[in-house]
Amino acid sequence: MKIHFKKSLFFYAFTCALCTTCLFISCSVDKEKKESEAYTLPDEKKSDPLPSWNESETKQAIISYVDEVTDTSNPDFIEIADRIATFDNDGTLWSEQPIYFQLFFAIDRVKAMATDHPEWKREQPYKAILENDMASLSQQGMKGIMKIIMTTHAGMTEKEFGTIVHDWISSARHPLKDKKYTELVFQPMLELLEYLRANDFKTFIVSGGGIDFMRPWAEDVYGIPKDQIVGSSGKVKYDNNNGNPVVRKLPEMDFIDDKEGKPEGIQKYIGRKPVFAAGNSDGDLQMLRWADSNELKSFKLYVHHTDSVREWAYDRNSHIGKFDKGLDEARQKGWVIADMKQDWKVIFPFELIQ
Amino acid sequence: MKIHFKKSLFFYAFTCALCTTCLFISCSVDKEKKESEAYTLPDEKKSDPLPSWNESETKQAIISYVDEVTDTSNPDFIEIADRIATFDNDGTLWSEQPIYFQLFFAIDRVKAMATDHPEWKREQPYKAILENDMASLSQQGMKGIMKIIMTTHAGMTEKEFGTIVHDWISSARHPLKDKKYTELVFQPMLELLEYLRANDFKTFIVSGGGIDFMRPWAEDVYGIPKDQIVGSSGKVKYDNNNGNPVVRKLPEMDFIDDKEGKPEGIQKYIGRKPVFAAGNSDGDLQMLRWADSNELKSFKLYVHHTDSVREWAYDRNSHIGKFDKGLDEARQKGWVIADMKQDWKVIFPFELIQ
Repeated sequence: MKIHFKKSLFFYAFTCALCTTCLFISCSVDKEKKESEAYTLPDEKKSDPLPSWNESETKQAIISYVDEVTDTSNPDFIEIADRIATFDNDGTLWSEQPIYFQLFFAIDRVKAMATDHPEWKREQPYKAILENDMASLSQQGMKGIMKIIMTTHAGMTEKEFGTIVHDWISSARHPLKDKKYTELVFQPMLELLEYLRANDFKTFIVSGGGIDFMRPWAEDVYGIPKDQIVGSSGKVKYDNNNGNPVVRKLPEMDFIDDKEGKPEGIQKYIGRKPVFAAGNSDGDLQMLRWADSNELKSFKLYVHHTDSVREWAYDRNSHIGKFDKGLDEARQKGWVIADMKQDWKVIFPFELIQ
Repeated sequence: MKIHFKKSLFFYAFTCALCTTCLFISCSVDKEKKESEAYTLPDEKKSDPLPSWNESETKQAIISYVDEVTDTSNPDFIEIADRIATFDNDGTLWSEQPIYFQLFFAIDRVKAMATDHPEWKREQPYKAILENDMASLSQQGMKGIMKIIMTTHAGMTEKEFGTIVHDWISSARHPLKDKKYTELVFQPMLELLEYLRANDFKTFIVSGGGIDFMRPWAEDVYGIPKDQIVGSSGKVKYDNNNGNPVVRKLPEMDFIDDKEGKPEGIQKYIGRKPVFAAGNSDGDLQMLRWADSNELKSFKLYVHHTDSVREWAYDRNSHIGKFDKGLDEARQKGWVIADMKQDWKVIFPFELIQ
């Protein structure tokens, strides 16, 4: 992919279509460590459930919480059925810079589909993508953007789309990090998910990203079953199709799982208020407030992107994963903030020797 | 409740509002057995996973299927992640005559709410319900019906509604059977759910009934977690409510989980095609076809209401749980039909000595 990254209106408009804004900041070329330099777990830490977390207050807060709510003699004990943990995806479980990875997918799809659509050479907004002409693309506005999303995410069966996503994510590489996108998940968060599950929490993804985009790979990568993945979705239509039934993806939005949509999605899909919620941006604030309002003891975790060398550093002024009101409220209410630079010994799994 | 049951247009119209039609047939007064007469399990059968099923082809088909798909050496072996089992609720897991139990709830709610609404004494359709005047009620048409449903199922928070349902189901009694509604679940199906779970199937409800109506009690009664209950739903709206967040139920339908809606709901909520699907009516046909189209070996089960003494007997001509096209297709395709009279030793749990 040779898209020229710059502070373009295109990215602003494009991600608006997924209910947020985009303007990438402080991109750093991957400082991938050589294997010989990679962090490895000392033997004495292997029984540690969160080995990639530094021995900080953050880690201790997580472990104390889990110890307390799983101890039947503790007044804050939580029954297993109520141990619902909800995680945002973009920026919380994997990276989200310089644009949401799902947008890389959409751009790649337009290019891949272009051979079947010779007319796209003359038709916007496809022409701009095919010519890597971000200036023209940015002029297409919301209408053009929605056209790209609907073209690439609808008009096929759920099975066909799943195969397309699976094939893409198995081979596509991040243009700056030169890693597969699924290599850009956060090792400390993988450990946290596993630790919670080992303590009988049921882990869910509650993401603004597309539910059908996540399901084909998130189950294997995060260990979260497809039915525990909540996200934005388009309408679908069952068709008996002469005895070969299919469910078709329609070019019409059904549900936006962001901001207020997150507690709404939790109500729709899960039906129970979480006791543990993790996010990284203002788009997750309502979900964390929702967990915070639980009568049971709850844990609110914000991931703060503070590491411009190993990952990216951004918060209040970022147009992807803007973390401003959430940062203030977390500090004011004493929610736990994981500072990536300070709290995470390792960020990506590839930093560990396999 | 002193509603006079008759073949009234009211019931027809009322249940139309929940996407089906209603006209009750062949109601039988409960022939509840005395405890001394109740069926008890012989000792040698206690290791039997389906003790309330007679030793018939139906039972053998279920057990053979489960044995085959859980045997790693069998070519039809199914990985645990793919062992998705979906069950209709009304008529499949509990009774549904003479009207869906959720409609008894709605009628009872109008009566319970009437003290706060003195104007209802003069305002249709409430006036008709309060006066048990089914003739007038039937004249209100779809508009009146939707008014009743929205009045009783929306305009409050999800928590408030959950409490209302919980309180109602804890005390209300079926007017003909004189049992709590949760006592009218099918013992053989409880055993089947448990048997499937013991074999690492993940069990889901996929019902035309209201998701928020089922969640408050179905978890305890069926052992199915709230997040594995799919049903019809209204729109919801998150409100930060000055720091005391709530999710409000809006008086607007969001999703009808019936007929084509069932595979669509499965795609939305589960994201994976079931290998086991059970229903009892034409409204479940699309769900069973969806399972039948699975590339993995699948099991399609229809419950046929054939017992006019212990439960009810109805199929092709019933306006609740009409079973006509589904019956033909099941026979033609060799799907398994559980004949309640022939295949079920016990129908309700209260027939067993506790």
